[in-house]
Amino acid sequence: LANLSEYDKISGMRIKLLGSSAGGGFPQWNCSCTNCRSLRKGELVGKPRSQSQVALSSDSKSWILLNASPDLRSQIESNSELQPSTTLEQTRHTPITSVILTNADLDHVLGLLLMRESQPIHVYATKSVRKILIEDNSMFKMLDQKQGQVTWTDLASEKSFEISGLVCTPYSIDAKYPIYVGSERAKELSPTEAVQALVIEDPKTKKRMAYLPGIAALDEDEMRNLNGGQGRTAREMGHIPMSGPKGSIELLSTLGPKLKKVFTHINNTNPVLNENGPEFKRVHDAGLTLGHDGMVFDL
Amino acid sequence: LANLSEYDKISGMRIKLLGSSAGGGFPQWNCSCTNCRSLRKGELVGKPRSQSQVALSSDSKSWILLNASPDLRSQIESNSELQPSTTLEQTRHTPITSVILTNADLDHVLGLLLMRESQPIHVYATKSVRKILIEDNSMFKMLDQKQGQVTWTDLASEKSFEISGLVCTPYSIDAKYPIYVGSERAKELSPTEAVQALVIEDPKTKKRMAYLPGIAALDEDEMRNLNGGQGRTAREMGHIPMSGPKGSIELLSTLGPKLKKVFTHINNTNPVLNENGPEFKRVHDAGLTLGHDGMVFDL
Repeated sequence: LANLSEYDKISGMRIKLLGSSAGGGFPQWNCSCTNCRSLRKGELVGKPRSQSQVALSSDSKSWILLNASPDLRSQIESNSELQPSTTLEQTRHTPITSVILTNADLDHVLGLLLMRESQPIHVYATKSVRKILIEDNSMFKMLDQKQGQVTWTDLASEKSFEISGLVCTPYSIDAKYPIYVGSERAKELSPTEAVQALVIEDPKTKKRMAYLPGIAALDEDEMRNLNGGQGRTAREMGHIPMSGPKGSIELLSTLGPKLKKVFTHINNTNPVLNENGPEFKRVHDAGLTLGHDGMVFDL
Repeated sequence: LANLSEYDKISGMRIKLLGSSAGGGFPQWNCSCTNCRSLRKGELVGKPRSQSQVALSSDSKSWILLNASPDLRSQIESNSELQPSTTLEQTRHTPITSVILTNADLDHVLGLLLMRESQPIHVYATKSVRKILIEDNSMFKMLDQKQGQVTWTDLASEKSFEISGLVCTPYSIDAKYPIYVGSERAKELSPTEAVQALVIEDPKTKKRMAYLPGIAALDEDEMRNLNGGQGRTAREMGHIPMSGPKGSIELLSTLGPKLKKVFTHINNTNPVLNENGPEFKRVHDAGLTLGHDGMVFDL
Protein backbone atom coordinates (compact mmCIF):
# COMPACT_ATOMS: atom_id res chain seq x y z
CA LEU A 1 0.00 0.00 0.00
CA ALA A 2 1.24 3.43 -0.87
CA ASN A 3 1.67 5.99 1.82
CA LEU A 4 -0.89 8.74 1.33
CA SER A 5 1.73 11.40 2.01
CA GLU A 6 3.50 10.27 -1.14
CA TYR A 7 0.40 10.99 -3.15
CA ASP A 8 1.90 13.62 -5.44
CA LYS A 9 4.72 11.32 -6.50
CA ILE A 10 2.40 8.75 -8.06
CA SER A 11 2.76 8.61 -11.82
CA GLY A 12 0.75 5.47 -12.57
CA MET A 13 -2.76 4.47 -11.66
CA ARG A 14 -4.12 4.89 -8.16
CA ILE A 15 -6.98 2.63 -7.03
CA LYS A 16 -8.84 3.42 -3.84
CA LEU A 17 -11.53 1.31 -2.20
CA LEU A 18 -14.00 3.80 -0.76
CA GLY A 19 -16.33 1.01 0.31
CA SER A 20 -15.89 -2.77 0.58
CA SER A 21 -19.19 -4.22 1.81
CA ALA A 22 -21.96 -5.93 -0.13
CA GLY A 23 -25.33 -4.19 -0.42
CA GLY A 24 -26.61 -3.06 2.97
CA GLY A 25 -23.16 -2.32 4.37
CA PHE A 26 -21.59 -3.57 7.60
CA PRO A 27 -23.30 -3.29 9.99
CA GLN A 28 -26.57 -3.72 8.10
CA TRP A 29 -29.53 -1.64 9.31
CA ASN A 30 -31.81 -4.55 10.29
CA CYS A 31 -29.20 -7.19 11.17
CA SER A 32 -28.10 -8.43 14.57
CA CYS A 33 -26.07 -11.42 13.41
CA THR A 34 -22.93 -12.25 15.38
CA ASN A 35 -20.84 -9.91 13.22
CA CYS A 36 -23.20 -6.90 13.26
CA ARG A 37 -23.96 -7.30 16.96
CA SER A 38 -20.33 -7.52 18.07
CA LEU A 39 -19.29 -4.66 15.76
CA ARG A 40 -21.97 -2.38 17.28
CA LYS A 41 -20.84 -3.38 20.77
CA GLY A 42 -17.24 -2.52 19.87
CA GLU A 43 -16.21 -6.13 20.55
CA LEU A 44 -15.32 -7.26 17.02
CA VAL A 45 -11.70 -7.40 15.92
CA GLY A 46 -12.65 -6.10 12.50
CA LYS A 47 -13.77 -3.05 10.58
CA PRO A 48 -17.09 -1.44 9.70
CA ARG A 49 -17.54 -1.26 5.92
CA SER A 50 -19.58 1.00 3.70
CA GLN A 51 -21.09 -0.32 0.46
CA SER A 52 -18.74 -1.35 -2.33
CA GLN A 53 -17.19 1.61 -4.15
CA VAL A 54 -13.97 1.94 -6.16
CA ALA A 55 -12.31 5.19 -7.29
CA LEU A 56 -9.50 5.35 -9.86
CA SER A 57 -7.12 8.10 -10.93
CA SER A 58 -4.23 8.36 -13.37
CA ASP A 59 -3.22 11.93 -12.53
CA SER A 60 -4.15 12.55 -8.87
CA LYS A 61 -6.52 15.30 -10.02
CA SER A 62 -9.53 13.69 -11.66
CA TRP A 63 -11.26 10.52 -10.51
CA ILE A 64 -13.35 7.81 -12.16
CA LEU A 65 -15.87 5.93 -10.04
CA LEU A 66 -16.53 2.25 -10.67
CA ASN A 67 -20.25 2.09 -9.88
CA ALA A 68 -21.98 4.58 -7.58
CA SER A 69 -22.78 3.32 -4.10
CA PRO A 70 -25.69 4.46 -1.89
CA ASP A 71 -23.01 5.52 0.66
CA LEU A 72 -21.30 7.88 -1.79
CA ARG A 73 -22.02 11.04 0.19
CA SER A 74 -20.21 9.84 3.31
CA GLN A 75 -17.52 8.13 1.19
CA ILE A 76 -16.70 11.47 -0.45
CA GLU A 77 -16.57 13.21 2.93
CA SER A 78 -14.21 10.50 4.24
CA ASN A 79 -11.77 10.85 1.32
CA SER A 80 -10.46 14.37 0.74
CA GLU A 81 -9.15 13.54 -2.78
CA LEU A 82 -12.79 13.31 -3.89
CA GLN A 83 -13.88 16.63 -2.41
CA PRO A 84 -14.22 19.92 -4.33
CA SER A 85 -11.06 21.91 -4.90
CA THR A 86 -10.47 24.62 -2.32
CA THR A 87 -8.16 26.61 -4.60
CA LEU A 88 -10.57 27.29 -7.46
CA GLU A 89 -12.73 30.41 -7.59
CA GLN A 90 -15.91 28.55 -8.47
CA THR A 91 -18.12 27.35 -5.60
CA ARG A 92 -19.34 24.20 -7.34
CA HIS A 93 -16.71 21.64 -8.31
CA THR A 94 -15.89 17.94 -8.10
CA PRO A 95 -12.78 15.98 -9.04
CA ILE A 96 -15.12 13.12 -10.06
CA THR A 97 -15.42 13.23 -13.85
CA SER A 98 -17.11 9.95 -14.65
CA VAL A 99 -18.83 6.81 -13.43
CA ILE A 100 -18.60 3.38 -15.07
CA LEU A 101 -21.58 1.17 -14.21
CA THR A 102 -21.01 -2.58 -14.31
CA ASN A 103 -24.70 -3.45 -13.91
CA ALA A 104 -27.99 -2.00 -12.62
CA ASP A 105 -27.88 -3.36 -9.05
CA LEU A 106 -29.25 -0.87 -6.53
CA ASP A 107 -26.02 -0.89 -4.53
CA HIS A 108 -24.16 0.03 -7.74
CA VAL A 109 -26.41 2.78 -9.12
CA LEU A 110 -28.22 4.60 -6.31
CA GLY A 111 -25.20 6.85 -5.75
CA LEU A 112 -25.90 8.50 -9.12
CA LEU A 113 -28.99 10.04 -7.52
CA LEU A 114 -26.72 11.63 -4.90
CA MET A 115 -24.61 13.28 -7.63
CA ARG A 116 -27.19 15.88 -8.56
CA GLU A 117 -27.08 19.60 -7.82
CA SER A 118 -26.65 20.34 -11.57
CA GLN A 119 -23.12 18.91 -11.61
CA PRO A 120 -21.96 17.68 -15.05
CA ILE A 121 -21.18 13.96 -14.99
CA HIS A 122 -20.23 11.39 -17.63
CA VAL A 123 -21.81 7.98 -17.14
CA TYR A 124 -20.64 4.83 -18.98
CA ALA A 125 -23.14 1.97 -19.04
CA THR A 126 -24.46 -0.62 -21.46
CA LYS A 127 -27.53 0.46 -23.47
CA SER A 128 -29.67 -1.95 -21.46
CA VAL A 129 -28.50 -0.65 -18.08
CA ARG A 130 -29.10 2.92 -19.26
CA LYS A 131 -32.62 1.99 -20.38
CA ILE A 132 -33.41 0.46 -16.98
CA LEU A 133 -32.33 3.67 -15.28
CA ILE A 134 -33.76 6.38 -17.52
CA GLU A 135 -36.77 4.64 -19.07
CA ASP A 136 -37.96 2.60 -16.07
CA ASN A 137 -37.07 4.97 -13.22
CA SER A 138 -38.26 8.55 -13.57
CA MET A 139 -36.04 9.70 -10.68
CA PHE A 140 -33.00 9.53 -12.95
CA LYS A 141 -34.40 12.53 -14.83
CA MET A 142 -32.85 14.56 -11.99
CA LEU A 143 -29.46 13.94 -13.63
CA ASP A 144 -30.70 15.78 -16.70
CA GLN A 145 -32.11 19.04 -15.36
CA LYS A 146 -29.57 21.23 -17.10
CA GLN A 147 -28.42 20.91 -20.71
CA GLY A 148 -25.13 19.04 -20.75
CA GLN A 149 -25.49 17.86 -17.15
CA VAL A 150 -25.31 14.13 -17.85
CA THR A 151 -23.48 12.53 -20.78
CA TRP A 152 -24.16 8.85 -21.42
CA THR A 153 -21.69 6.68 -23.30
CA ASP A 154 -22.55 3.11 -24.25
CA LEU A 155 -20.41 0.27 -22.95
CA ALA A 156 -20.17 -2.80 -25.18
CA SER A 157 -18.47 -6.07 -24.33
CA GLU A 158 -14.85 -6.27 -25.57
CA LYS A 159 -14.97 -2.72 -27.01
CA SER A 160 -12.11 -0.77 -25.43
CA PHE A 161 -12.37 2.97 -24.84
CA GLU A 162 -10.16 5.73 -23.47
CA ILE A 163 -11.17 7.38 -20.22
CA SER A 164 -9.13 10.03 -18.36
CA GLY A 165 -5.84 8.74 -19.75
CA LEU A 166 -6.68 5.07 -19.05
CA VAL A 167 -8.00 2.35 -21.37
CA CYS A 168 -11.04 0.40 -20.20
CA THR A 169 -12.34 -2.85 -21.70
CA PRO A 170 -15.66 -4.31 -20.52
CA TYR A 171 -16.36 -8.05 -20.70
CA SER A 172 -19.87 -9.45 -20.39
CA ILE A 173 -19.78 -11.94 -17.50
CA ASP A 174 -23.42 -12.64 -16.63
CA ALA A 175 -26.83 -12.41 -18.32
CA LYS A 176 -28.73 -11.82 -15.08
CA TYR A 177 -30.53 -8.50 -14.51
CA PRO A 178 -31.50 -7.30 -11.02
CA ILE A 179 -34.75 -8.73 -9.61
CA TYR A 180 -36.49 -5.33 -9.75
CA VAL A 181 -36.17 -5.28 -13.57
CA GLY A 182 -38.65 -8.16 -13.81
CA SER A 183 -38.52 -11.12 -16.22
CA GLU A 184 -40.77 -9.50 -18.87
CA ARG A 185 -38.62 -6.40 -19.16
CA ALA A 186 -35.43 -8.48 -19.08
CA LYS A 187 -36.57 -10.29 -22.24
CA GLU A 188 -36.44 -6.96 -24.11
CA LEU A 189 -32.85 -6.35 -22.99
CA SER A 190 -29.65 -7.83 -24.37
CA PRO A 191 -28.30 -10.76 -22.31
CA THR A 192 -24.73 -9.57 -22.96
CA GLU A 193 -25.51 -6.16 -21.44
CA ALA A 194 -26.52 -7.25 -17.94
CA VAL A 195 -23.18 -7.46 -16.08
CA GLN A 196 -19.73 -6.34 -17.21
CA ALA A 197 -16.32 -7.02 -15.71
CA LEU A 198 -13.83 -4.23 -16.38
CA VAL A 199 -10.16 -4.43 -17.30
CA ILE A 200 -8.47 -1.05 -16.98
CA GLU A 201 -4.97 -0.40 -18.28
CA ASP A 202 -2.63 2.50 -17.81
CA PRO A 203 -1.06 2.87 -21.30
CA LYS A 204 2.01 4.64 -19.84
CA THR A 205 3.00 1.78 -17.53
CA LYS A 206 1.05 -1.10 -19.19
CA LYS A 207 -0.16 -2.01 -15.66
CA ARG A 208 -3.70 -3.37 -15.48
CA MET A 209 -6.44 -3.93 -12.97
CA ALA A 210 -9.51 -6.12 -13.35
CA TYR A 211 -12.73 -5.37 -11.51
CA LEU A 212 -15.12 -8.31 -11.23
CA PRO A 213 -18.10 -7.25 -9.15
CA GLY A 214 -20.56 -9.96 -8.21
CA ILE A 215 -18.32 -12.76 -9.41
CA ALA A 216 -15.70 -12.14 -6.78
CA ALA A 217 -18.20 -11.67 -3.97
CA LEU A 218 -16.89 -13.18 -0.77
CA ASP A 219 -19.52 -15.20 1.00
CA GLU A 220 -19.82 -18.39 2.97
CA ASP A 221 -22.46 -21.02 2.67
CA GLU A 222 -22.35 -20.82 6.46
CA MET A 223 -24.28 -17.55 6.04
CA ARG A 224 -27.46 -19.56 5.90
CA ASN A 225 -26.82 -20.78 9.43
CA LEU A 226 -25.72 -17.39 10.76
CA ASN A 227 -28.91 -16.01 9.30
CA GLY A 228 -31.13 -18.11 11.53
CA GLY A 229 -31.55 -20.81 8.87
CA GLN A 230 -33.70 -18.48 6.80
CA GLY A 231 -31.09 -16.78 4.63
CA ARG A 232 -30.05 -17.54 1.11
CA THR A 233 -26.73 -19.21 0.40
CA ALA A 234 -24.02 -17.30 -1.39
CA ARG A 235 -24.83 -19.09 -4.65
CA GLU A 236 -28.55 -18.33 -4.26
CA MET A 237 -27.65 -14.63 -3.99
CA GLY A 238 -25.69 -14.84 -7.23
CA HIS A 239 -22.39 -14.73 -5.35
CA ILE A 240 -19.55 -17.25 -5.33
CA PRO A 241 -18.90 -18.73 -1.88
CA MET A 242 -15.41 -18.25 -0.51
CA SER A 243 -14.67 -21.78 0.67
CA GLY A 244 -15.12 -25.26 -0.80
CA PRO A 245 -14.44 -26.65 -4.28
CA LYS A 246 -14.78 -23.92 -6.92
CA GLY A 247 -15.10 -21.37 -4.12
CA SER A 248 -13.39 -18.06 -4.71
CA ILE A 249 -10.32 -18.85 -2.57
CA GLU A 250 -9.57 -21.96 -4.63
CA LEU A 251 -10.30 -20.21 -7.93
CA LEU A 252 -8.24 -17.15 -7.18
CA SER A 253 -5.24 -18.81 -5.53
CA THR A 254 -4.57 -20.86 -8.69
CA LEU A 255 -4.86 -17.79 -10.90
CA GLY A 256 -1.71 -15.82 -11.79
CA PRO A 257 0.41 -16.19 -8.63
CA LYS A 258 2.04 -12.79 -9.25
CA LEU A 259 -1.31 -11.00 -9.31
CA LYS A 260 -2.54 -9.08 -6.29
CA LYS A 261 -6.07 -10.30 -5.60
CA VAL A 262 -8.39 -8.26 -3.41
CA PHE A 263 -11.82 -9.27 -2.14
CA THR A 264 -14.49 -6.58 -1.93
CA HIS A 265 -18.32 -6.52 -1.75
CA ILE A 266 -18.13 -8.63 1.43
CA ASN A 267 -21.42 -9.70 3.01
CA ASN A 268 -22.09 -8.48 6.57
CA THR A 269 -22.71 -12.02 7.87
CA ASN A 270 -19.44 -13.42 6.50
CA PRO A 271 -17.26 -14.84 9.33
CA VAL A 272 -14.16 -13.59 7.48
CA LEU A 273 -14.95 -10.12 8.88
CA ASN A 274 -13.73 -11.32 12.27
CA GLU A 275 -9.98 -10.74 11.92
CA ASN A 276 -9.28 -13.09 14.82
CA GLY A 277 -11.13 -15.98 13.17
CA PRO A 278 -9.93 -18.95 11.06
CA GLU A 279 -11.68 -17.68 7.91
CA PHE A 280 -9.69 -14.44 7.91
CA LYS A 281 -6.48 -16.42 8.39
CA ARG A 282 -7.41 -18.74 5.50
CA VAL A 283 -7.74 -15.79 3.11
CA HIS A 284 -4.41 -14.42 4.23
CA ASP A 285 -2.68 -17.82 4.03
CA ALA A 286 -3.94 -18.27 0.46
CA GLY A 287 -2.09 -15.07 -0.49
CA LEU A 288 -5.30 -13.09 -0.95
CA THR A 289 -6.19 -9.67 0.45
CA LEU A 290 -9.41 -8.76 2.23
CA GLY A 291 -10.33 -5.28 1.00
CA HIS A 292 -11.34 -2.61 3.50
CA ASP A 293 -12.61 0.97 3.26
CA GLY A 294 -9.79 3.40 2.51
CA MET A 295 -7.41 0.75 1.06
CA VAL A 296 -5.13 2.17 -1.65
CA PHE A 297 -3.15 0.47 -4.42
CA ASP A 298 -0.75 2.10 -6.83
CA LEU A 299 0.07 0.42 -10.12
CA LEU B 1 -34.00 18.87 25.53
CA ALA B 2 -34.31 15.68 27.47
CA ASN B 3 -31.29 13.90 28.75
CA LEU B 4 -30.84 10.67 26.83
CA SER B 5 -30.07 8.81 30.05
CA GLU B 6 -33.64 9.51 31.15
CA TYR B 7 -34.91 7.74 28.07
CA ASP B 8 -36.82 5.00 29.87
CA LYS B 9 -38.75 7.49 31.97
CA ILE B 10 -40.41 9.13 28.97
CA SER B 11 -44.14 8.46 28.90
CA GLY B 12 -45.17 10.85 26.12
CA MET B 13 -43.92 11.32 22.59
CA ARG B 14 -40.21 11.48 21.78
CA ILE B 15 -39.12 13.32 18.64
CA LYS B 16 -35.58 12.92 17.40
CA LEU B 17 -33.96 14.78 14.49
CA LEU B 18 -31.67 12.25 12.84
CA GLY B 19 -30.82 14.70 10.07
CA SER B 20 -31.39 18.44 9.67
CA SER B 21 -29.96 19.45 6.30
CA ALA B 22 -31.72 20.08 3.00
CA GLY B 23 -31.11 17.68 0.10
CA GLY B 24 -27.39 17.15 -0.48
CA GLY B 25 -26.46 17.44 3.20
CA PHE B 26 -23.84 19.67 4.78
CA PRO B 27 -21.19 19.63 3.47
CA GLN B 28 -22.58 18.95 0.01
CA TRP B 29 -20.53 16.65 -2.25
CA ASN B 30 -19.78 19.22 -5.01
CA CYS B 31 -19.87 22.44 -2.99
CA SER B 32 -17.01 24.61 -1.82
CA CYS B 33 -19.05 27.62 -0.67
CA THR B 34 -17.82 29.48 2.41
CA ASN B 35 -19.78 27.15 4.71
CA CYS B 36 -18.76 23.83 3.12
CA ARG B 37 -15.16 24.90 2.72
CA SER B 38 -14.70 26.08 6.29
CA LEU B 39 -16.54 23.05 7.70
CA ARG B 40 -14.18 20.69 5.81
CA LYS B 41 -11.19 22.66 7.07
CA GLY B 42 -12.47 22.36 10.64
CA GLU B 43 -12.70 26.15 10.89
CA LEU B 44 -16.49 26.60 11.08
CA VAL B 45 -18.16 27.20 14.43
CA GLY B 46 -21.04 24.99 13.40
CA LYS B 47 -22.11 21.41 12.81
CA PRO B 48 -22.13 19.01 9.86
CA ARG B 49 -25.68 17.90 9.04
CA SER B 50 -27.04 14.83 7.33
CA GLN B 51 -30.16 15.05 5.19
CA SER B 52 -33.45 15.86 6.91
CA GLN B 53 -34.88 12.92 8.87
CA VAL B 54 -37.28 12.79 11.82
CA ALA B 55 -38.00 9.77 14.04
CA LEU B 56 -40.91 9.58 16.50
CA SER B 57 -41.77 7.18 19.30
CA SER B 58 -44.56 6.94 21.87
CA ASP B 59 -43.20 3.93 23.77
CA SER B 60 -39.38 4.01 23.46
CA LYS B 61 -39.57 0.64 21.65
CA SER B 62 -40.98 1.22 18.18
CA TRP B 63 -40.21 4.15 15.92
CA ILE B 64 -42.02 5.95 13.10
CA LEU B 65 -39.93 7.73 10.46
CA LEU B 66 -41.16 10.96 8.90
CA ASN B 67 -39.82 10.54 5.36
CA ALA B 68 -36.83 8.34 4.52
CA SER B 69 -33.58 10.18 3.87
CA PRO B 70 -30.75 9.03 1.57
CA ASP B 71 -28.52 9.15 4.69
CA LEU B 72 -30.70 6.68 6.60
CA ARG B 73 -28.05 3.97 6.88
CA SER B 74 -25.57 6.19 8.70
CA GLN B 75 -28.38 7.86 10.66
CA ILE B 76 -29.44 4.46 12.03
CA GLU B 77 -25.85 3.61 12.94
CA SER B 78 -25.49 6.96 14.75
CA ASN B 79 -28.65 6.44 16.84
CA SER B 80 -28.73 3.21 18.85
CA GLU B 81 -32.48 3.45 19.53
CA LEU B 82 -33.02 2.70 15.84
CA GLN B 83 -30.76 -0.33 15.70
CA PRO B 84 -31.91 -3.98 15.90
CA SER B 85 -32.59 -5.38 19.35
CA THR B 86 -29.65 -7.29 20.82
CA THR B 87 -31.82 -9.24 23.26
CA LEU B 88 -34.07 -11.00 20.76
CA GLU B 89 -33.24 -14.43 19.34
CA GLN B 90 -33.94 -13.46 15.75
CA THR B 91 -31.03 -12.11 13.68
CA ARG B 92 -33.13 -9.74 11.57
CA HIS B 93 -35.00 -7.02 13.44
CA THR B 94 -35.67 -3.29 13.41
CA PRO B 95 -37.46 -1.01 15.87
CA ILE B 96 -38.65 1.01 12.84
CA THR B 97 -42.24 -0.03 12.15
CA SER B 98 -43.39 2.57 9.66
CA VAL B 99 -42.55 5.51 7.43
CA ILE B 100 -44.87 8.44 6.67
CA LEU B 101 -43.99 10.17 3.39
CA THR B 102 -44.93 13.83 3.06
CA ASN B 103 -44.12 14.01 -0.66
CA ALA B 104 -42.04 12.27 -3.36
CA ASP B 105 -38.88 14.41 -3.17
CA LEU B 106 -35.72 12.35 -3.62
CA ASP B 107 -34.32 13.46 -0.28
CA HIS B 108 -37.55 12.22 1.36
CA VAL B 109 -37.97 8.84 -0.34
CA LEU B 110 -34.59 7.39 -1.35
CA GLY B 111 -34.09 5.98 2.15
CA LEU B 112 -36.91 3.51 1.47
CA LEU B 113 -34.57 1.78 -0.99
CA LEU B 114 -32.09 1.32 1.87
CA MET B 115 -34.73 -0.45 3.97
CA ARG B 116 -34.69 -3.66 1.96
CA GLU B 117 -33.27 -7.01 2.98
CA SER B 118 -36.80 -8.48 3.14
CA GLN B 119 -37.69 -6.45 6.24
CA PRO B 120 -41.45 -5.85 6.68
CA ILE B 121 -42.25 -2.13 6.61
CA HIS B 122 -45.47 -0.11 6.64
CA VAL B 123 -45.42 2.96 4.38
CA TYR B 124 -48.01 5.76 4.58
CA ALA B 125 -48.25 7.99 1.50
CA THR B 126 -50.90 9.63 -0.65
CA LYS B 127 -52.13 7.54 -3.60
CA SER B 128 -50.30 9.89 -5.99
CA VAL B 129 -46.97 9.65 -4.16
CA ARG B 130 -47.31 5.85 -4.06
CA LYS B 131 -48.01 5.78 -7.81
CA ILE B 132 -44.90 7.86 -8.53
CA LEU B 133 -42.79 5.41 -6.56
CA ILE B 134 -44.17 2.04 -7.57
CA GLU B 135 -45.53 2.74 -11.08
CA ASP B 136 -42.85 5.13 -12.35
CA ASN B 137 -39.76 3.71 -10.62
CA SER B 138 -39.21 -0.02 -10.99
CA MET B 139 -36.55 -0.02 -8.26
CA PHE B 140 -39.25 0.24 -5.62
CA LYS B 141 -40.27 -3.33 -6.50
CA MET B 142 -37.38 -4.30 -4.21
CA LEU B 143 -39.63 -3.43 -1.26
CA ASP B 144 -42.04 -6.13 -2.37
CA GLN B 145 -39.86 -9.20 -2.88
CA LYS B 146 -41.51 -11.19 -0.11
CA GLN B 147 -45.23 -11.49 0.52
CA GLY B 148 -46.18 -9.05 3.27
CA GLN B 149 -42.87 -7.18 3.07
CA VAL B 150 -44.32 -3.75 2.32
CA THR B 151 -47.77 -2.54 3.40
CA TRP B 152 -49.01 0.68 1.81
CA THR B 153 -51.66 2.79 3.49
CA ASP B 154 -53.15 5.82 1.74
CA LEU B 155 -52.80 9.25 3.31
CA ALA B 156 -55.61 11.70 2.57
CA SER B 157 -55.70 15.34 3.57
CA GLU B 158 -57.54 15.97 6.88
CA LYS B 159 -58.20 12.24 7.41
CA SER B 160 -56.75 11.31 10.81
CA PHE B 161 -55.40 7.83 11.48
CA GLU B 162 -53.90 5.96 14.41
CA ILE B 163 -50.26 4.92 14.18
CA SER B 164 -48.26 3.24 16.97
CA GLY B 165 -50.37 4.80 19.69
CA LEU B 166 -50.32 8.29 18.13
CA VAL B 167 -52.88 10.08 15.96
CA CYS B 168 -51.64 11.61 12.71
CA THR B 169 -53.53 14.10 10.53
CA PRO B 170 -52.13 15.10 7.13
CA TYR B 171 -52.94 18.48 5.57
CA SER B 172 -52.36 19.21 1.88
CA ILE B 173 -50.05 22.25 1.74
CA ASP B 174 -48.78 22.41 -1.84
CA ALA B 175 -49.80 21.12 -5.27
CA LYS B 176 -46.25 20.93 -6.62
CA TYR B 177 -44.74 17.54 -7.52
CA PRO B 178 -40.96 16.99 -7.78
CA ILE B 179 -39.36 18.04 -11.09
CA TYR B 180 -38.56 14.43 -12.03
CA VAL B 181 -42.28 13.57 -12.13
CA GLY B 182 -42.70 15.77 -15.21
CA SER B 183 -45.62 18.06 -16.03
CA GLU B 184 -47.51 15.47 -18.14
CA ARG B 185 -47.51 12.87 -15.39
CA ALA B 186 -48.35 15.50 -12.76
CA LYS B 187 -51.60 16.28 -14.64
CA GLU B 188 -52.76 12.71 -13.99
CA LEU B 189 -52.15 13.08 -10.26
CA SER B 190 -54.29 14.82 -7.65
CA PRO B 191 -53.11 18.35 -6.79
CA THR B 192 -54.05 17.76 -3.14
CA GLU B 193 -51.79 14.71 -2.93
CA ALA B 194 -48.45 16.36 -3.75
CA VAL B 195 -47.24 17.64 -0.35
CA GLN B 196 -48.68 17.00 3.11
CA ALA B 197 -47.92 18.67 6.42
CA LEU B 198 -48.42 16.34 9.38
CA VAL B 199 -49.94 17.05 12.78
CA ILE B 200 -49.24 14.23 15.21
CA GLU B 201 -50.93 14.01 18.61
CA ASP B 202 -50.28 11.81 21.58
CA PRO B 203 -53.81 10.97 22.79
CA LYS B 204 -52.55 10.23 26.33
CA THR B 205 -51.06 13.68 26.88
CA LYS B 206 -52.90 15.67 24.16
CA LYS B 207 -49.50 17.09 23.20
CA ARG B 208 -49.01 17.75 19.47
CA MET B 209 -46.24 18.31 16.98
CA ALA B 210 -46.55 19.70 13.47
CA TYR B 211 -44.10 18.76 10.73
CA LEU B 212 -44.04 21.17 7.79
CA PRO B 213 -41.34 20.02 5.38
CA GLY B 214 -40.57 22.39 2.53
CA ILE B 215 -42.68 25.19 3.93
CA ALA B 216 -40.42 25.77 6.90
CA ALA B 217 -37.19 25.45 4.93
CA LEU B 218 -34.61 27.87 6.20
CA ASP B 219 -32.84 29.71 3.42
CA GLU B 220 -31.53 33.16 2.67
CA ASP B 221 -31.90 35.11 -0.50
CA GLU B 222 -28.22 35.78 0.15
CA MET B 223 -27.65 32.20 -1.05
CA ARG B 224 -27.61 33.52 -4.59
CA ASN B 225 -24.55 35.60 -3.76
CA LEU B 226 -22.78 32.88 -1.79
CA ASN B 227 -23.37 30.63 -4.74
CA GLY B 228 -21.27 32.74 -7.09
CA GLY B 229 -24.27 34.69 -8.38
CA GLN B 230 -25.45 31.59 -10.23
CA GLY B 231 -27.64 29.94 -7.64
CA ARG B 232 -31.35 30.04 -7.26
CA THR B 233 -32.95 32.08 -4.50
CA ALA B 234 -34.77 30.32 -1.70
CA ARG B 235 -38.11 31.15 -3.31
CA GLU B 236 -36.96 29.81 -6.67
CA MET B 237 -36.12 26.51 -4.95
CA GLY B 238 -39.65 26.34 -3.51
CA HIS B 239 -38.39 27.26 -0.04
CA ILE B 240 -39.35 30.21 2.14
CA PRO B 241 -36.42 32.53 2.88
CA MET B 242 -35.61 33.07 6.54
CA SER B 243 -35.28 36.85 6.57
CA GLY B 244 -37.29 39.74 5.16
CA PRO B 245 -41.06 40.41 5.08
CA LYS B 246 -43.00 37.12 5.05
CA GLY B 247 -39.74 35.26 5.65
CA SER B 248 -39.93 32.30 8.00
CA ILE B 249 -38.53 34.17 11.04
CA GLU B 250 -41.26 36.80 10.80
CA LEU B 251 -43.98 34.22 10.10
CA LEU B 252 -42.99 31.89 12.89
CA SER B 253 -42.22 34.43 15.58
CA THR B 254 -45.77 35.80 15.39
CA LEU B 255 -47.26 32.32 15.55
CA GLY B 256 -48.26 30.86 18.95
CA PRO B 257 -45.63 32.34 21.26
CA LYS B 258 -45.82 29.29 23.55
CA LEU B 259 -44.98 26.90 20.71
CA LYS B 260 -41.47 25.52 20.33
CA LYS B 261 -40.47 26.15 16.72
CA VAL B 262 -37.56 24.23 15.19
CA PHE B 263 -35.96 24.81 11.80
CA THR B 264 -34.81 21.76 9.87
CA HIS B 265 -33.99 20.98 6.18
CA ILE B 266 -31.38 23.77 6.26
CA ASN B 267 -29.52 24.50 3.02
CA ASN B 268 -25.73 24.02 3.07
CA THR B 269 -25.06 27.57 1.80
CA ASN B 270 -27.21 29.24 4.48
CA PRO B 271 -25.11 31.66 6.60
CA VAL B 272 -27.16 30.66 9.68
CA LEU B 273 -24.99 27.52 9.86
CA ASN B 274 -22.15 29.69 11.15
CA GLU B 275 -22.97 29.80 14.88
CA ASN B 276 -20.74 32.84 15.33
CA GLY B 277 -22.63 34.85 12.71
CA PRO B 278 -25.42 37.43 12.95
CA GLU B 279 -27.94 35.16 11.19
CA PHE B 280 -27.62 32.47 13.85
CA LYS B 281 -28.07 35.10 16.56
CA ARG B 282 -31.17 36.48 14.81
CA VAL B 283 -32.85 33.05 14.86
CA HIS B 284 -32.04 32.66 18.55
CA ASP B 285 -33.19 36.19 19.41
CA ALA B 286 -36.52 35.55 17.66
CA GLY B 287 -37.11 32.65 20.07
CA LEU B 288 -36.65 30.01 17.38
CA THR B 289 -34.48 26.89 17.46
CA LEU B 290 -32.05 25.80 14.76
CA GLY B 291 -32.39 22.02 14.51
CA HIS B 292 -29.28 19.85 14.43
CA ASP B 293 -28.60 16.14 13.99
CA GLY B 294 -29.32 14.21 17.19
CA MET B 295 -31.62 16.87 18.72
CA VAL B 296 -34.32 15.34 20.93
CA PHE B 297 -37.66 16.72 22.15
CA ASP B 298 -40.04 15.08 24.56
CA LEU B 299 -43.69 16.10 24.60
